[in-house]
Amino acid sequence: MNKVISLSSDFGVMNKGIAVMEAVALSICPDAKIFNMSHGIPFFEISQGARVLEAVAYLPVGCHVMVVDPGVGTERKGIVIETERGDYLIGPDNGILLPATNFLGGFKRAFELANEKYYRKPVSPVFHGRDVFTPAAAYLCAGVKVEEFGPELREKDLVKAPYPEAKIEGNKIVAQIIDVNNFGSPFLNVRQEEMHKLFKVGDVIKAEVSGKKFDLPYKRTYGEVKVGNVLLVDDDFGRVEVAVNMGFFTDKFKVKVGDKVVLEK
Amino acid sequence: MNKVISLSSDFGVMNKGIAVMEAVALSICPDAKIFNMSHGIPFFEISQGARVLEAVAYLPVGCHVMVVDPGVGTERKGIVIETERGDYLIGPDNGILLPATNFLGGFKRAFELANEKYYRKPVSPVFHGRDVFTPAAAYLCAGVKVEEFGPELREKDLVKAPYPEAKIEGNKIVAQIIDVNNFGSPFLNVRQEEMHKLFKVGDVIKAEVSGKKFDLPYKRTYGEVKVGNVLLVDDDFGRVEVAVNMGFFTDKFKVKVGDKVVLEK
Amino acid sequence: MNKVISLSSDFGVMNKGIAVMEAVALSICPDAKIFNMSHGIPFFEISQGARVLEAVAYLPVGCHVMVVDPGVGTERKGIVIETERGDYLIGPDNGILLPATNFLGGFKRAFELANEKYYRKPVSPVFHGRDVFTPAAAYLCAGVKVEEFGPELREKDLVKAPYPEAKIEGNKIVAQIIDVNNFGSPFLNVRQEEMHKLFKVGDVIKAEVSGKKFDLPYKRTYGEVKVGNVLLVDDDFGRVEVAVNMGFFTDKFKVKVGDKVVLEK
Repeated sequence: MNKVISLSSDFGVMNKGIAVMEAVALSICPDAKIFNMSHGIPFFEISQGARVLEAVAYLPVGCHVMVVDPGVGTERKGIVIETERGDYLIGPDNGILLPATNFLGGFKRAFELANEKYYRKPVSPVFHGRDVFTPAAAYLCAGVKVEEFGPELREKDLVKAPYPEAKIEGNKIVAQIIDVNNFGSPFLNVRQEEMHKLFKVGDVIKAEVSGKKFDLPYKRTYGEVKVGNVLLVDDDFGRVEVAVNMGFFTDKFKVKVGDKVVLEK
Repeated sequence: MNKVISLSSDFGVMNKGIAVMEAVALSICPDAKIFNMSHGIPFFEISQGARVLEAVAYLPVGCHVMVVDPGVGTERKGIVIETERGDYLIGPDNGILLPATNFLGGFKRAFELANEKYYRKPVSPVFHGRDVFTPAAAYLCAGVKVEEFGPELREKDLVKAPYPEAKIEGNKIVAQIIDVNNFGSPFLNVRQEEMHKLFKVGDVIKAEVSGKKFDLPYKRTYGEVKVGNVLLVDDDFGRVEVAVNMGFFTDKFKVKVGDKVVLEK
Repeated sequence: MNKVISLSSDFGVMNKGIAVMEAVALSICPDAKIFNMSHGIPFFEISQGARVLEAVAYLPVGCHVMVVDPGVGTERKGIVIETERGDYLIGPDNGILLPATNFLGGFKRAFELANEKYYRKPVSPVFHGRDVFTPAAAYLCAGVKVEEFGPELREKDLVKAPYPEAKIEGNKIVAQIIDVNNFGSPFLNVRQEEMHKLFKVGDVIKAEVSGKKFDLPYKRTYGEVKVGNVLLVDDDFGRVEVAVNMGFFTDKFKVKVGDKVVLEK
């Protein structure tokens, strides 16, 4: 397999823990190639972390570590999920790993990270990213079989994903905001394949956000509406994005992660 | 040639797109050495992005990608500029690549990135950094000739640079602020070679900023004036910097990128 | 020795100087492995920088560069400290390198970086990180002996550390806040070994902070007290941390780096 490890977290910008996780990985698997996916996930935000992990679909098949872990040190499990594409997703059992499986061919199987043989010791009760998750990724890269980490877990026994995949219901898609970028543009839990079954670029969608109804042109890119106007576009990572050309959607509409957005034909 | 790629953008801190660009580069040229130059350029700021790119003069000769791209998805061209030093500067045709050529031996020739053979597909209309610019850098590293990317462009047909090089006019240099650092210190479009033709360290310059005239000591380093006092120094990347010792110049003078600064002997 | 270099600074997020330091290091020692430890140290904060450098104990033995350097360009010395573990700590003589020696087996010897042969030229008076410190690290990796950099310095002649190691005094530890993380939790200059001589997990400590006295439960992890309650835990890098479960200690108590904290049995 590829000796590829990606690391993501809510540690914040250039936290010293990131370099330490890299060093732990390389001490176990010296020829691993490490990508830092994002360490700017907002503190404890499961939905936004899940959205970041979806983007590993654009990385090589590998071992992808996600450390947004409000339950660290409690009884929550550490887990590894194998995907049909061949990736291993590694992190806490809080739902954050599941949405990415939809971009990686689907969920194959999961195991608990219970085997202390593959922990870095002593295990800090506040930093499983360094002591449990990153070592698991590195041991997988080094050839350890996923079955060796602990008991297999059934998908239905895992903590649920922070958001489902939005589906067409009649002439509507009832969606949810799963992330907001630095430019104030929300992303929806709508995959482009699903979107394209009901709508096409050029349509004007009847949208409802926070009880406000308005026309939402479905465009190819921002500049196709006037400055300050709203639009919907296919985003750059397989979902759809609502935005204001040269402005901030979240300033115009007071919305946040988790809010409902209805798209009607 | 060196298999060196640098990446810069206004994506913000540890945006997931950075790792994805790295992965795209390595999928095309697995033995490339990648430097992340800066991803903290203020959103859409051409002048500050151009200033960042000047610093590739301190990196090995290589392929330098710059993604500050307000026109992405419109008709603006993607381009590659070859420098006399042997670098390739890759990004949108919005002027951002040109100032760096002055630090890299000068402009040699330019080509449009028109050949779709060298795009990553599908091409997102909002992320040419991943799908057009980074692949171009990686294909150049992998041995593709620059002529293969598309038609040659004349320098005079490119969008103009966000700032010219300030030149001596009699006993003055009429300069422009091109960047402000985290410490509130502005940088001017004055190269040290040009500065040294008119002034020398130890001089007291007659300065004019925003209509205010004041004496500006030209020093070697900050500590050579009292805390809170203004000074001008040679900066660490080949230009000159105005600053307040242990303070913020931009708090003292309400200036911003693009403002005029006159330096008189 | 390991060809490992770590870089830390107060340059801020993805400053272009970081990539330039990496390039300088690799130009001198092409097969060095570089870790970016942290570049988010608050501007000029010696105490917080010293705390970051302590974490190189979790990296391989190597050459660790620290650039928090308010005195750059003045007469302050550049130094390299050899530790008993075999590391070299490189940076300005302002005390910032010393606390880490306590985590690396202790101080062995120190030298001034006086030999201009090992400088990058021209030396910028404002960027010794690039022109003096990083080259020293890279030359050490490349096999240059530490004695070649300049005259040996005695520990007692170096600028003092920004904080001492807190020691037990009777039934108390009189400690000092040395860092505060993104979550508002202060870290104390108390090593876990010292803490465990007087207290054990499960104790309720009599604490005094800024003149306020209160009970401080010593727990294994945050979730063991109610949301909003204070606690003390062993941190993830060998010291102790005071925190509020799911809250910000620094909001509840108006404390800052340098403030005194008394822990009484």
